[in-house]
Amino acid sequence: MGRVFSGFRPTGKQHIGNYLGVIQNCVSLQDEYDCIYCVVDIHALTTLDSTDALNEDIHEMVLDWLAAGIDPKKCILFVQSHVPKVMELYTLFGMVTPLSWLLRVPTFKEKVKMQPHNVNYGLVGYPILMAADITLYKGEIVPVGGDQLPHLELTREIVRRFNSIYGDVFPEPQAKLASFPSVLGLDGVQKMSKSCNNYIEISAPPEEILRRVMTAVTDPGRKYRSDPGRPEVCNVYNLHKYFTSSRAEEIAAECRAADIGCVDCKRMLAQSISSGLESFRGKRATLVSKPDYVADVIADGARRAEAIAKETMKEVREHMKLL
Amino acid sequence: MGRVFSGFRPTGKQHIGNYLGVIQNCVSLQDEYDCIYCVVDIHALTTLDSTDALNEDIHEMVLDWLAAGIDPKKCILFVQSHVPKVMELYTLFGMVTPLSWLLRVPTFKEKVKMQPHNVNYGLVGYPILMAADITLYKGEIVPVGGDQLPHLELTREIVRRFNSIYGDVFPEPQAKLASFPSVLGLDGVQKMSKSCNNYIEISAPPEEILRRVMTAVTDPGRKYRSDPGRPEVCNVYNLHKYFTSSRAEEIAAECRAADIGCVDCKRMLAQSISSGLESFRGKRATLVSKPDYVADVIADGARRAEAIAKETMKEVREHMKLL
Repeated sequence: MGRVFSGFRPTGKQHIGNYLGVIQNCVSLQDEYDCIYCVVDIHALTTLDSTDALNEDIHEMVLDWLAAGIDPKKCILFVQSHVPKVMELYTLFGMVTPLSWLLRVPTFKEKVKMQPHNVNYGLVGYPILMAADITLYKGEIVPVGGDQLPHLELTREIVRRFNSIYGDVFPEPQAKLASFPSVLGLDGVQKMSKSCNNYIEISAPPEEILRRVMTAVTDPGRKYRSDPGRPEVCNVYNLHKYFTSSRAEEIAAECRAADIGCVDCKRMLAQSISSGLESFRGKRATLVSKPDYVADVIADGARRAEAIAKETMKEVREHMKLL
Repeated sequence: MGRVFSGFRPTGKQHIGNYLGVIQNCVSLQDEYDCIYCVVDIHALTTLDSTDALNEDIHEMVLDWLAAGIDPKKCILFVQSHVPKVMELYTLFGMVTPLSWLLRVPTFKEKVKMQPHNVNYGLVGYPILMAADITLYKGEIVPVGGDQLPHLELTREIVRRFNSIYGDVFPEPQAKLASFPSVLGLDGVQKMSKSCNNYIEISAPPEEILRRVMTAVTDPGRKYRSDPGRPEVCNVYNLHKYFTSSRAEEIAAECRAADIGCVDCKRMLAQSISSGLESFRGKRATLVSKPDYVADVIADGARRAEAIAKETMKEVREHMKLL
């Protein structure tokens, strides 16, 4: 049973893209591994213009995660900045990481394009902070999508560089490739995300789910109710595969035969999503009724994470002869 | 009475260049200001290839400073890495510091030339770590030579940027221009430094001082004992001005008249340096005889520095809403 480390930006209330991808994967890993899940608020500072919403975003996100099945008895769930030692390791790793490695990272170049007005030093050092996150807790296994493999490879390079200079302190973390389903947003074009406003929050009440689903783009070739649809290009159908899986083939056939229209089909989907998330909403409501629950969970997580971090930093200082 | 902050790289046993410049200045500031003096070992990591000598270098340097009159009852003397919070502030400052500011710093460009094989991320962020050093302790006054003014200006820019985003947390530190004497090394060409091996350690015994002084380059135009010398181009004469100040004009006249030769002149200088540092050597020997003294001083310094740092970081977190 190895140690899994995974970090997630605080994005507030989670949407069904998060849920079907990362959250469900994290829930299932809990039973197989020693899991550490971290809300990476310091990473968020590299791109945020304001921290006004940060605490509420963390709170709502953690609520969603807990209600979705992340179990603080099985894993450590904590907030990155609550264990400041990660900033020490980041600083020290910075001394062994060539600037050129960082400037080559594809996501850095993308971020420069997205926020040319704010290319800050922390944005450049993002992969070092990620390396510090994983290694501070001696993470051995990191669940990643294929697009994140270059990041993890950079973490491994930093670890190798550090170990070669100061001696073997860190295991080289291994990627655990997860085939996260790519959930498109309601526009049917972009990945579901907060910034594209094409999402459905998992905590949304049924009426909001219905309202949101009704705005979804379907097969653009189906102009009239009587036109046959093409479920294979329809994102509403794609979502049926997750939320109405037992009847998905039937729905596809009805769509192709124009037996059902898009409005009917969306109503069905909204119904499936609502009932699929019913027990989640119930659990969330229970957690909301205990006002200190989230704070207690993350405080306990920080204590347990800190205990591991303390040991690691002791070892790091000994090897670096910083005594 | 404002608070002075000043940081110094751990360079081991100090030489007379350090002594006549920075150390004597720091000793005199103690009586006028609330002084915090820091041995910046984390900074050293940006350029060191190995940390094997780091602890001994820190120990010998602190011994020299204490023997030279730095008084831990009047000031705080501590080692940077013993108060890890500076790495937190460095990390957070990195999020508000544009990369472009850092790449423009003249000393960064020089360092890239000096160690093209090791342009690490920490080297780029050096001015941010310096800003964190000063501001973590709410330093108001920073003694600098003219060449360091651009660094302090960058600290002030980072402070202004941080304050404008998160509210007024830090005072803008002011430069206190010190006209440090530029002490040339025994080669008469380069500034006295360890790396040029053109130095005399202040803790050297008289016979070593003599041996070192005898290697000093004098007026290169004076080929024979009978040639008149030019004290104004002679570095041995320059050192007489510090260590034989009461007789300096007389020595200059004797040199110009070829009444004394360079060998005589050097013997006199070695004698002056030896006697000028006699009480320093005596105090150093006393401190060496108390094996825990240095460790106790810097542990106490770290405790007092940590207390200030803790307050500052509490304020920083509140303003940044990292709670």
